[in-house]
Amino acid sequence: MADAELTAAADTALHDELRGRFGDRYSTAAAVREHHGKDDSHHPVIPPDGVAFAESTADVAFAVRACARHGAPVIPFGAGTSIEGHVQAVCGGISIDLGRMNRVLAVRPDDLDVTVEAGVTRMQLDRELRGTGLFFPVDPGADATLGGMAATGASGTTTVRYGTMRDNVVSLTAVLASGEVVRTGGRARKSSAGYDLTNLLVGSEGTLGVITELTLRLHPVPEAMAAAVCSFPGLEEAVRSVVEAVQMGVPLARAELLDGTAMRAVNRHSGFSYAETPAVFFEFHGSEADVEANGAMVQEISGSLGGTSFEYARRQDERTRLWKARHDAYPAILALRPGCHGLTSDVCVPVSRLAQCIAETRDDMKRATIPWGIVGHVGDGNFHAVFMIDPDSEAELAEAEAINERIVRRAIAMEGTCTGEHGIGMGKIGFLREEFGAAGVSAMRAVKAALDPQGIMNPGKVVA
Amino acid sequence: MADAELTAAADTALHDELRGRFGDRYSTAAAVREHHGKDDSHHPVIPPDGVAFAESTADVAFAVRACARHGAPVIPFGAGTSIEGHVQAVCGGISIDLGRMNRVLAVRPDDLDVTVEAGVTRMQLDRELRGTGLFFPVDPGADATLGGMAATGASGTTTVRYGTMRDNVVSLTAVLASGEVVRTGGRARKSSAGYDLTNLLVGSEGTLGVITELTLRLHPVPEAMAAAVCSFPGLEEAVRSVVEAVQMGVPLARAELLDGTAMRAVNRHSGFSYAETPAVFFEFHGSEADVEANGAMVQEISGSLGGTSFEYARRQDERTRLWKARHDAYPAILALRPGCHGLTSDVCVPVSRLAQCIAETRDDMKRATIPWGIVGHVGDGNFHAVFMIDPDSEAELAEAEAINERIVRRAIAMEGTCTGEHGIGMGKIGFLREEFGAAGVSAMRAVKAALDPQGIMNPGKVVA
Repeated sequence: MADAELTAAADTALHDELRGRFGDRYSTAAAVREHHGKDDSHHPVIPPDGVAFAESTADVAFAVRACARHGAPVIPFGAGTSIEGHVQAVCGGISIDLGRMNRVLAVRPDDLDVTVEAGVTRMQLDRELRGTGLFFPVDPGADATLGGMAATGASGTTTVRYGTMRDNVVSLTAVLASGEVVRTGGRARKSSAGYDLTNLLVGSEGTLGVITELTLRLHPVPEAMAAAVCSFPGLEEAVRSVVEAVQMGVPLARAELLDGTAMRAVNRHSGFSYAETPAVFFEFHGSEADVEANGAMVQEISGSLGGTSFEYARRQDERTRLWKARHDAYPAILALRPGCHGLTSDVCVPVSRLAQCIAETRDDMKRATIPWGIVGHVGDGNFHAVFMIDPDSEAELAEAEAINERIVRRAIAMEGTCTGEHGIGMGKIGFLREEFGAAGVSAMRAVKAALDPQGIMNPGKVVA
Repeated sequence: MADAELTAAADTALHDELRGRFGDRYSTAAAVREHHGKDDSHHPVIPPDGVAFAESTADVAFAVRACARHGAPVIPFGAGTSIEGHVQAVCGGISIDLGRMNRVLAVRPDDLDVTVEAGVTRMQLDRELRGTGLFFPVDPGADATLGGMAATGASGTTTVRYGTMRDNVVSLTAVLASGEVVRTGGRARKSSAGYDLTNLLVGSEGTLGVITELTLRLHPVPEAMAAAVCSFPGLEEAVRSVVEAVQMGVPLARAELLDGTAMRAVNRHSGFSYAETPAVFFEFHGSEADVEANGAMVQEISGSLGGTSFEYARRQDERTRLWKARHDAYPAILALRPGCHGLTSDVCVPVSRLAQCIAETRDDMKRATIPWGIVGHVGDGNFHAVFMIDPDSEAELAEAEAINERIVRRAIAMEGTCTGEHGIGMGKIGFLREEFGAAGVSAMRAVKAALDPQGIMNPGKVVA
């Protein structure tokens, strides 16, 4: 790896120190740096000065201490699937790649928990749990690392039933800015001991520490599962079907909205032939009897709202194909406009406000010049407007950003949040003050300054 | 209120300022101060210098700002039902009584949430929700204020099904040490926006801010509920019945262990005539069919472990009487030794370690000279050893504390916590370092110093 590729922001001594420990697990090659300076979004690529591939918590602690001594930023990197500019090296510095920390350390069926290194991905864990009768439910679609999912406070399609990462991280190990290693708790199911460092680190996006290990809750695989696709004449009816089910306490395991555009994308990308009108993909988990009863209840609600079809997918392979199609909806939508970049909104509102929020958003977007689609985890009140923007058009980016800003303002006015699951990154820093007020942001800044006085932990993210 | 009652620690100017705003809602009377300097435990009474009865968030902000100007401690007071010395004025200062902030501000059945002032008690909320088809599940037994329950990270008998306060606080309003008012979020069901100030304040025991309002999750009242009391030959079998049910994924709504002493106390106090051997009080929530099926499953598990009886309480009045008896178990146990004070352990361990932890604890306690009983929320891995100590005997207090210390060490060695639900207060500060290590405690101290640089918020609690 040529020293010629070093940028001015990092000094040679730091590179030497890292190379001394990491050997060829430390890279300053342009391609490696480039890969670590981008995520799955429209945000520009901003490469770090070097990339350290950690294989242990001790590796991470070494790298953080070295960076601290040199005042260099530290940017944790998992799978690079975030979409709000979480990994871009806006102030230069060293990317710590946790992908090689991919051991499942202990599966404990008796305690319904598992301890993993931060680089284990969601799908890897899913494979390793096969045969145990247990599963890890949080499913953001992308094959993210579990450390990354914790760091961004991820959630996804199953949140309506199983909660977000916040609800499923029992405790974690992290390297703080000082290089100290902290374990935020044991494995007890509850604790009221001291400040909740676990939840402080979950969602902190690498700005307070680098998560290196996690203990996660597991859930018993349900006795029965069934999915169903229900088509509706319009978005309102589709949203209402879910909201009514939630309000009636029907235990939905998933309830995913796709608008006509998203359905067209799914049909093309995954070879389905659903009506290209708004639809909800439901899933039910429980005993055979519960699954039947809950499905029937939702079918009745949907019917009363003008639902035009209700097709079950009961077999495992049918369900797998359906959910893969749903997970591929984002790339499928982008493929409708070849070469485009995605800009995705992520607001979440109280469910009683969801139909109105989506309707007003759609009416606003109808005036846009850029194509768009809507998908949403509507059981939680969370939806994404996806804009297919021309990467070479500043006008399109500006237009999408302006619409997104209105979506966020609308959601906050409805007591919602600017981000349900994607995080703040560098993309939403400007909205924090609107959501939490000056006092909230100043409290967050105080916490950041307390735990990272040098400001080296993923600077330029979450708090300005 | 006579100025003669002022202590030296507070200056007259502060009293004058508070009296100026609060009028006769500010008191320095000995009886009032005494009442606000004690909780429901063995910890000594340490009265504050004055008590301000707040009626609004603005009142609280005024009091905090006044205290900050004078460098006087601020101690929030709800119902005084905590048991780890949370409200004692160890450094003097002003108690802010939130009991008059008792308005339910909004019940929103469509969003399954409610917004309350911090002084609303659990039972008051329960009454106000009657007829809505919804309920708030967290139930620590005592009729605590919801603000106090949030501040201590309370849980109780229903946690195995509905989670702790942490799982049921959507967001909250708090007055920080600066006197600024922060709202930690909106009402969306999930958010990944910024640092989790909600969970930072939940469990912070007044040391980071005074909680003045809360938005809480509500749950639909289940279609059917049934309780059952199962007696066992020994503690191990009783514990195992619950652990096996949890491990099999049987959805228990409550699973409460009472040892023979606790059963004797319950019989005497509540007029039951159960066998005075270890027992588990179960409860099942769901559809009629689920309740029957789950009850049958637990009955089978219990039978296989030597359970000697399985008595259902299906009618509402029977269930109410049973759970009232369980909730009264603590005073009932203390009544076995008239005039005694209670010292209560509160460890929580992974469920796979629970039987061993309880057995070793019992064997240790059998050598004690002080009478004791055990109750526990064993579905969570949480249990309480209650020591009936002579308030005039330092030897008994020392003996109970020594045993409690061993219980805590045992639990931490099993990856558990020193406190499942009672909090740290002044009673468990010494254990934090053992549980979280030097790095964890120093991170907590940094957060405390950042949000309360003067150290006026409930000093002497949580972090030393």
